[in-house]
Formats: sequence, structure tokens, C-alpha cells
Amino acid sequence: MKDFTPEYIDHLRHIIEERNDDEARKALAELHPADIAELCDDLDVDEAEYLFKLLSEEAQADVLMELDEDDRQKLLSKMDAEDIAKQLEHLDTDDAVDIIQEMDADEREKILSHIDDVEQAGDIIDLLKYDEDTAGGLMGTEMIVVNENWSMPETIKEMRMQAEDMDEVYYVYVVDNEERLKGTLPLKKLITHPNVSKIKHVMETDPASVKVDTPIEDVALDFEKYDLVAMPVVDQIGRLLGRITVDDVMDKVRDLSERDYQLASGLSGDVESDDKLFAQTKARLPWLLIGMVGGLCNSFILGKFEGGFVVDPALALFIPLIGGTGGNVGTQSSAIVVQGLANGSLDIKKSGRQLIKELGVGLINGCIIALLVFLYNWITIGQGHQVTTLAVSISLFCVVMFASVFGTFVPLTLEKLKIDPALATGPFISITNDIIGMLIYMSISTWLILTLH
Amino acid sequence: MKDFTPEYIDHLRHIIEERNDDEARKALAELHPADIAELCDDLDVDEAEYLFKLLSEEAQADVLMELDEDDRQKLLSKMDAEDIAKQLEHLDTDDAVDIIQEMDADEREKILSHIDDVEQAGDIIDLLKYDEDTAGGLMGTEMIVVNENWSMPETIKEMRMQAEDMDEVYYVYVVDNEERLKGTLPLKKLITHPNVSKIKHVMETDPASVKVDTPIEDVALDFEKYDLVAMPVVDQIGRLLGRITVDDVMDKVRDLSERDYQLASGLSGDVESDDKLFAQTKARLPWLLIGMVGGLCNSFILGKFEGGFVVDPALALFIPLIGGTGGNVGTQSSAIVVQGLANGSLDIKKSGRQLIKELGVGLINGCIIALLVFLYNWITIGQGHQVTTLAVSISLFCVVMFASVFGTFVPLTLEKLKIDPALATGPFISITNDIIGMLIYMSISTWLILTLH
Repeated sequence: MKDFTPEYIDHLRHIIEERNDDEARKALAELHPADIAELCDDLDVDEAEYLFKLLSEEAQADVLMELDEDDRQKLLSKMDAEDIAKQLEHLDTDDAVDIIQEMDADEREKILSHIDDVEQAGDIIDLLKYDEDTAGGLMGTEMIVVNENWSMPETIKEMRMQAEDMDEVYYVYVVDNEERLKGTLPLKKLITHPNVSKIKHVMETDPASVKVDTPIEDVALDFEKYDLVAMPVVDQIGRLLGRITVDDVMDKVRDLSERDYQLASGLSGDVESDDKLFAQTKARLPWLLIGMVGGLCNSFILGKFEGGFVVDPALALFIPLIGGTGGNVGTQSSAIVVQGLANGSLDIKKSGRQLIKELGVGLINGCIIALLVFLYNWITIGQGHQVTTLAVSISLFCVVMFASVFGTFVPLTLEKLKIDPALATGPFISITNDIIGMLIYMSISTWLILTLH
Repeated sequence: MKDFTPEYIDHLRHIIEERNDDEARKALAELHPADIAELCDDLDVDEAEYLFKLLSEEAQADVLMELDEDDRQKLLSKMDAEDIAKQLEHLDTDDAVDIIQEMDADEREKILSHIDDVEQAGDIIDLLKYDEDTAGGLMGTEMIVVNENWSMPETIKEMRMQAEDMDEVYYVYVVDNEERLKGTLPLKKLITHPNVSKIKHVMETDPASVKVDTPIEDVALDFEKYDLVAMPVVDQIGRLLGRITVDDVMDKVRDLSERDYQLASGLSGDVESDDKLFAQTKARLPWLLIGMVGGLCNSFILGKFEGGFVVDPALALFIPLIGGTGGNVGTQSSAIVVQGLANGSLDIKKSGRQLIKELGVGLINGCIIALLVFLYNWITIGQGHQVTTLAVSISLFCVVMFASVFGTFVPLTLEKLKIDPALATGPFISITNDIIGMLIYMSISTWLILTLH
């Protein structure tokens, strides 16, 4: 990974300011498109545009693809449809679709009409129809396809032709006369079996493949499970439609786990540390406001139970303990469920078992914590506050049990309803636990205090 | 992804119970090693062992590699060193090292002494020396290496020999006479340039590579950035030592983000939803106990400020609001930093900028929330509680500002100290915020109440 020093950036800025084309070209020649994209992020739009225009069309396309969405938007806004179309022609269809998808319908049409390669334009239009969150939305059409009845020399000749347009070849897909996927031809077979008469004798049969409407979460799990570099995509009757490459899947795996992490941390939207102040505020304020409403609900509830405080004001001292513990237990329980569902280790059909196990974990943890708190309180404030000491521990135990079950139940229910279970994590769980925990605490303790005193 | 129905498992159990070798072999033949590993997880050890022994040595090795660590341990404990050694011989060195790493020194030595292929055993011993969390710990030695001065036909002949032992070939690495990495030969060049006189004329120069001591987090970012399928590993003077494959990196990306997620959710250790009750309790209790201590600290602090409560008991009503908001703000701030550091979008050199931005976000969010709470309190309890209403909003604002800065500062500092910044997230942030927030709230409000009343 290149790390650009501030000195390097300054040096480059100087070159750009002087419009020193030769020096700038020399600097660019040493960089990978992904590095150039990173550079563009550090520069102003005009500076980035200057560098960009010095690149070859193919390099422009690669850089475009590597840019952040908003950097890309800025740069694209400076180009006309014809230039953009020319750059897209250098990209794989799946990457071109990713870029075109960010545009509005008018722009799309204008750009597509400028793509000279009719086949590629047609593929892009077809690919745009698929749902972004399915295998179809992730696939491209660049792949080498050969017929199972061809001989190896025939195959190699055909591959040579097909490979011209492609960046890199990892698999060769083998189909029958009806275009149905039958196998894959590992490239090493080209080397180890150069003269075989029919490909089907050396191909690997039963290739792992996905249906075009498979959700991307499942596609990602398959890539991980089967250690794949690329996976073919087929329609309902097994005809080969395209392929998904591991780099796109890896980006998705990271995106999905980042999204879960953000939800668990109370961030909405896809916020990044380098986003602007306003974007950051927008991503964070909603949860804070929900938390605020939760906090005000709590103050309302506590106000209703003032009777208990009057008898023993020490009750107030344990409010943070009850709220905090409930929140922590709930967060743990829901995180375990969300992560298990995400990495495939938890099966929704085993919900009942998971709930029972959570009850067990809650029972053990609840007993230990309630007992420790009881001992601490007995020693420190026990004298004169016996009822409160008892009330705190009983309600703490109840809160832990409730939070364990609630934190497990909510994400499992969401998953059953086909809603993203990660929505259940983070502030949602902790606020609900806070409110219900407070209700439990105040009900039990007020009742005990009023009964036993 | 195969999904095994309970009926299928029952059917298979029946076959196993009857020791019906033929039927069992037929069932296994239809399954990918990763699926067989998943099956073994659903079966008892003895059942899994029976199935396992029906597999070919090569399939055994593949299944072994796909198993969870504890399932693997159980199965390995039923085998002697010679059998294990035979299976390891079928694996790539990096996978064999992963398995051997889980054993103690005695077992290791015994197994290594039974590996017949001296070169492989030597490679494994060499690889065991590298730190697990660096490129060296992730690399294997199976790769095709050719000399830059060879012709293409020579190269193909050599590749044919080297490829025999390998599962799959994605890249061919080109070295000079001193074994220094000079380039890569994309496999499509075999097809497109079959007769070139020197490989160095068609190889791609300046190949992306990593030094052997690069931390795996950086290796993963490089794979994502450069969209690689495999990456060569070199020593300090550029000599080729091995290669890292994308499937291992993808597992690491998932592991690392799961770990961050677990830390943020207050789970220690690598806990999974299908772990046993005891393992779950062990992973969760530590944070709950820390939370408990935090809660008791709070009760102690609140006790010290009883003076305020005496003047206006309504102060107690806002304890959950203050604690909750501080926790939420802190969690958001630290999550943004941790995620930015993990995906490379936040540079530690820009810490100052990040802190200033956080101050801005805190200022906006703090003003909005404090104002809303002020309005709500003014309308509902304002009459007779003017000072408390004011105190709640002022301290709420201060708590938000503090939590923003604190949540940003701690993970950045940990990163500077080369400690995992993710340790700063989750319960740690929320508990500290809770305690300091409570101190801020009680100090400000008690002071205001005692001064203004």
C-alpha cells in the first residue's frame, strides 16, 4: 500500500500548478490506478481533473472505478457523455454497471447511446435490470466459454480470441449445446492435458454456481466456504449468464460487516471518518434523538414512581447500574445472533434452541452479578437499606434475564420477517432495555419497599 | 450453499448406524469437502469419524482444513501421527501450517517426522517461524516460479512440471538469477504470446508484493485495493519467499471485522452462537463485571452528591438520559475512528483534523439535543424546577462534547501506541462516559442548585 506523504502531495501540487505535463505523466506512470484514485481524493477537483486528463483512456477507466462515489461524481460532472462512454468501454460490464447505476435515467441513456460496442452496451442494459443485492447485480459477462465437445487445441484457439478483451482469466466455463453450464476447465489443464480430444473428459464437473436471484449475502458465504476466485451465475434452468469475481465479493463482505458494525454503533447511512461535518451529523443525530426520547421516557417513568424515592432516596443511586447492565447484556445477545446469521453459523430454524441457551447464559450471568452487587451493597450501605439492597439485586437479576431473551428474540424475529436483523442491535436494544429495565427496577423496588417497610 | 435438512441428517445417521459403507460413500461423493465439514459439525464425533475414514486421503485433508478448530481437534485425537502426516502432505503448506500450529510441540515434531516429502516438511518448519499476524504467517510456498530469461516454450515445459503438485494456478511469478521477484506472467499470455523468446518481454513488471513482516491488516487492504487473487511475499531485499491467496485473506477480513464487532458489542474472545453455554458465559461475563463495577462507581458518585437531590429530587429523573446520551455519542465517535482505521480511510497522521471535526459534530448535536430537552422540560416540569431544567441541558451539552472528544481520542491514542484501537469501543467507552458524564451532571447541577436557589 502506497502511503503518500504530505511532502509528496505538495510536490505534486506544485507540478500541477505549473502545468508541467511531462513531470506529471512521469509521476502517474509509477502509480497503480488504485493509488491514483487515492491521490485524487487528496487533491482538489481541478487538480484531479488535470491529472486524469493526462491518463490513457484505459487508465482513466480504471481510476474512475477505484474512486469514491462522490469523487467520481465530481470528476464525471466535468466530462461529456461521449468521453464517459469511451472510458466505460474499457471496463468489465459489472464495473461499468456499477458506475452507470449512480446516474439518473437521462444521463444513462445518453452515455449508453455513445458506447460503440453494441454487444457491450446490450450486456450493460441487461445487467441493469437485476436487483443490486443479488448475484445478478454483481455479475459481469466477461468470461471465456467453451463447448464441452471441443478438443483442447480448438478450445485454446477459441480462448485466445475471447481472451483478447479480458483483463485476466481464471476459469474457463464449459457449456453444452444448450448453453447450460456443465463444468469448469482449470487453466492448469491447458498445460497438463494439451491434446485431449474432448474438453468434457478433463473438465471438472458439478461446478459451484449460483442462481441469478441469490442474495449477495449467500453468494459471499459460498465464496468463503468453497474458496473461490470466481463463480458462474446461471438462470433457473442452468444456462450460464455471467460470472462474479472475488474482488467484488470481498468488497461486499467488507461493506456488509461495516454496515452491521455501524448499526451496532448507532450510525445510520454509510458514514466514513472522512465525510464532511454535515454528513456526519446527519448519520449520527437520528440515533441520538431516539436515545433522547428514550431518556425522557425514563425520566417520565421515574417520576411516576416517586413514592419509592421518598421512602428510600438511595434507590436513585442504582439507576445507572440497572440501565447499564441491561444495555450490555442485550447488546451481547443481539450481537451474537446478528453475527451468527451473517456468517452462517446460526440457522434460523434453530431459534428455539438459541433462546433456551440464552436463558441459560442469562441465568448464570444474572445470578453472579446480582450476588456480587448484593454483597457489595450489604457491606457498604446494608445498614438501614436492607430492603433496597434486596430490591436492587432481585431487579438486576430480572433485568439480565429480560435483556438476554429480548436481545435474542428481536433479531431472530426480524430475520423471520425478512428484515435485516442488524437493525435490532445498537441503540435500539440498549434504549428499550433501559426503559423496560427501569420499569422492572422501579416496580419491584417500590413494591418491596412499600410492602416490607 | 448446501442446506442440510434434519431429514437428510437423520437419513445419514441411519446409514452410519448400519455401517452401510456403499450408501455412505455414495452420499459423500456428492458433497464438496466444505459441505462434508459442515456435516461433521452436525454429527457426533464417532459418526464423523466413520464418514471421515471412508474418504480418500486427499479428501480427508480437504475436509480437515475446512473443519472448525474444535471439531478438527476431536477428529485428530482419534488418529495417529502417521495418518495425520499423510493427510497434511495433500495440503498446501500454508494450510498444513494452520493445522500444525494448533498442536503442542511434541505432537508437531512427531507429525513432521512422518512427512515423507522432505521439501514440504522443510517448508512447513520454515513457515512456522513467522508471526501468525504477518504476511509470513499467511503465506504458502506452492507457486510457479520461472526465470525472466526463459523462452515461453521453456517456461511452459517448466510450468507443466511445477503445476503437477498444485491445486490451482492463477499467477506465474518471474524472478531474476538472484531469485528476486521481477514480474508476473498472467496466464492469458500463455495463450496470447505462445512463442516469445524471453519471458521478461511479456511479463508485467512492478508486481504488487508484500514484505514478509507486513501486518495482515495491511495485506488485506492491499488485496482489496488492487483487486488481487494472490500476492507474492518477498524478503527485505526482494527475494521471493511465497504467496498469499485471496481465500485466506477473505477469511481474515471476516475474522478481523467480526472481532471489531465483538469488541464493540462487549464480547471477549471469539464467541459464536453455536458455542457451548460455558464458553458463551466466559466470553460475556468479563464485560458485564466491568459494567457492574462502573455502575457501582456511579452509585458511589451519586451518593457523594446527595446534597443536590435533597434540594430537588427531580434531578434523579434525568440520570438515565445523561448516561445514555453520553454512551451513545461516545460509541458513535469511537466506531467511526475504529472503522476508518480498519478500512484505511482514516490516516493516523490526520488525528488532529479528526478531533477538530468531532468537536464540530459534538457542538451541533449537543446544541440540538440540549435545546430539545430544555424545551421539553420547560413545558412539562419547568414550573418550580427552573434551575434543574437549566442544569440538565447545560450538563447534557457538556457530556456530549466530552463524549465526542473522548470517543475519538482513545482509539486514536491506542493506535498510536500500536494497541488494537477496537479495544476502545463498546462497554469501555460507554462505562467511562457514564461515570464521567455522571460526575459532570452532578457537579454542574449541584453547583447551580446550591448557588441559584
